[in-house]
Amino acid sequence: MSGEAPVTGAWRPGDPPGRRQFATLFTDRPLALRAGGALSSVEVAYETFGALDADGRNAVLVCHALSGDAHVATGPDADGAEREGWWHGMVGPGQPIDTERHFVICSNVLGGCSGTTGPASIDPATGRRYGMRFPLVTIEDMVDVQARLLDALGVDRLAAVVGGSMGGMQALAWATRYPDRVTTVVADATTSRLGAQAIAFNAVGRQAIVEDPHFHSGDYYETDSQPDSGLAIARMVGHITYLSDESMHAKFGRRLREGDDYAYEFVSEFEVETYLAYQGARFVERFDANTYLHMTKAMDYFDLRGEAATLADALRGVRSRFLVTSFSSDWLFTTAQAKQLVAALRMVDAEVWFSEIESAYGHDAFLLEPEAQYELIAPFLTEALVESTRRAREVTPL
Amino acid sequence: MSGEAPVTGAWRPGDPPGRRQFATLFTDRPLALRAGGALSSVEVAYETFGALDADGRNAVLVCHALSGDAHVATGPDADGAEREGWWHGMVGPGQPIDTERHFVICSNVLGGCSGTTGPASIDPATGRRYGMRFPLVTIEDMVDVQARLLDALGVDRLAAVVGGSMGGMQALAWATRYPDRVTTVVADATTSRLGAQAIAFNAVGRQAIVEDPHFHSGDYYETDSQPDSGLAIARMVGHITYLSDESMHAKFGRRLREGDDYAYEFVSEFEVETYLAYQGARFVERFDANTYLHMTKAMDYFDLRGEAATLADALRGVRSRFLVTSFSSDWLFTTAQAKQLVAALRMVDAEVWFSEIESAYGHDAFLLEPEAQYELIAPFLTEALVESTRRAREVTPL
Repeated sequence: MSGEAPVTGAWRPGDPPGRRQFATLFTDRPLALRAGGALSSVEVAYETFGALDADGRNAVLVCHALSGDAHVATGPDADGAEREGWWHGMVGPGQPIDTERHFVICSNVLGGCSGTTGPASIDPATGRRYGMRFPLVTIEDMVDVQARLLDALGVDRLAAVVGGSMGGMQALAWATRYPDRVTTVVADATTSRLGAQAIAFNAVGRQAIVEDPHFHSGDYYETDSQPDSGLAIARMVGHITYLSDESMHAKFGRRLREGDDYAYEFVSEFEVETYLAYQGARFVERFDANTYLHMTKAMDYFDLRGEAATLADALRGVRSRFLVTSFSSDWLFTTAQAKQLVAALRMVDAEVWFSEIESAYGHDAFLLEPEAQYELIAPFLTEALVESTRRAREVTPL
Repeated sequence: MSGEAPVTGAWRPGDPPGRRQFATLFTDRPLALRAGGALSSVEVAYETFGALDADGRNAVLVCHALSGDAHVATGPDADGAEREGWWHGMVGPGQPIDTERHFVICSNVLGGCSGTTGPASIDPATGRRYGMRFPLVTIEDMVDVQARLLDALGVDRLAAVVGGSMGGMQALAWATRYPDRVTTVVADATTSRLGAQAIAFNAVGRQAIVEDPHFHSGDYYETDSQPDSGLAIARMVGHITYLSDESMHAKFGRRLREGDDYAYEFVSEFEVETYLAYQGARFVERFDANTYLHMTKAMDYFDLRGEAATLADALRGVRSRFLVTSFSSDWLFTTAQAKQLVAALRMVDAEVWFSEIESAYGHDAFLLEPEAQYELIAPFLTEALVESTRRAREVTPL
């Protein structure tokens, strides 16, 4: 089922498939989307690391965040060249998510722009790229696509589903949506739903994109230019929220780009300005503005409570063990939010490990501080293997 | 010297002078600017409230923040109609800054867009509006213009100079620049210099403006459209930083604009989105994008340390008594920054009153919580009158 279909999701040129693999899913029956609408076929770009053991008890699904992709660990990239994984230091041989012990799967999310069907894909109904006609996708839809991918790969049960930030939302949605397939959940630097401030920052980013005159209502793929300016501004806003004031102060303070004296000019003068502008400019080289709109909307809408009256009510059916981590300087998805999640899980007697990790790196700490997470995640995943085996035996007595 | 010259700074049409008064300054010798360059004439829009007493000991200068103007207290506006002052509740009869006891002066800052010479003014050298050719102004330049205005008004000494946010920076600059003219200083929700995060937010706002295709390198005054989109985005970013997560949560939470169920659409769906977009749209009706660029740059560059090795060194010459206030939920100009200022002032044996006021309103608390400030500011200003009289007698023995 994998590796057969052409790449439809990668709209930037010069991006042939390499070790990245593709599965075409939902060709038998359409994927019905939570927000309405359906997709009659979904192409998923994914990568795997390590090997599934004989009884299928060591699979770990890693879910990526807003700007991530399937390339979670260092290895050959789409073009065959070695490229650092976005979670290097966390996923790899001997690392907390140890690819010598676990079979690690990571796929680009539904609506993404790194190989999986998204706004830049061709709409089979029209023969044109979807653009903003791509249906609104939710975190739950992303998870449903991942579940179908696991079916295709012959993975019935996950020893763990792991994710940070938007990836953590997916991990949590796995626990409520597929309770019997998930032995453990690692929810890193995440929240059961965004608060008003986080929605506000996302709204500003979206406004910068849609107001960019190159946006063309989302139909910019066939034009000469993309809404790069708006997307860069959105990324700059986002980037500030991923760092802490403390880490920005330590990294940049009020240092000037050149010399010790103010030039008194309107070009970027402080190092932090140059850095942010660089982050914005780099981002537009690899990311699609329509996907940015869809991912931020999916996060805004995500609410683990669903239709339940309380978060605990929504969690009553979970059968997983949880590791919830937060980072002390993360002001986007705060320790307070993580503790609300932990409290709700404990109300329904779920087994929860929780730790607030001291870090100055803000929200990005989940990416930047793998060492600090090692002693939490490595033993948790060792336990996950034991538990996964035990549960497998419950289902299939020896 | 006041009320004579035509209005040159107010570039939006339909804005005749009313009770607002104007002074034309620096006609004898140009204003030399700290960042280089000079202005051969400066028009200043100002308002006064109350009366200067016979010995001139009751003058209070209020300095406005980024988006403020001279209309600090409720009274007739430029068009003669009654309009609420931007610091109503704080400045007025019987209010903490009591216009029945104090002679209150407030002027639009240099570089502003509400009557004082700024980027929208006509450059006498070319007969065209300055636009981005307007020289870069600093907080110190703003203060120098205020000092000259006081000369013109016959005010030698201030019982107090009061300001919040960027206004607080001006108040602090008064203390170091004109130590003999300032009896007391009220520095509200301010800082001796911005940190990296605050500079970063300003940089994003500026990028949104200059990348707006209607910006035309700042020469948009004679065109059909202004860079309203970019300015609105800048304001939205800024607005988020003026509120606290707590107050946004209390005000909006995840409430929807309409109904209880997600519409799953890309238009603003959460109330906080609508609110922010409204704030952005309102702002462009009354503010000039070039002034926004200049004000944020002035804030970025401001550093009370100046050329001194430490903040305390820079403060050695001050002769004022200080009231420094911060707000517990202000994450833009934090209590920690206020405490650094207080510590430096105490190192040079300045008399300092300091209070962190409990408030959920974030940075905007200095505008929104006059009641909470009453019991600090009212007695401080009463003392200021006594002290101002004492100092006046020192200089001119009875």
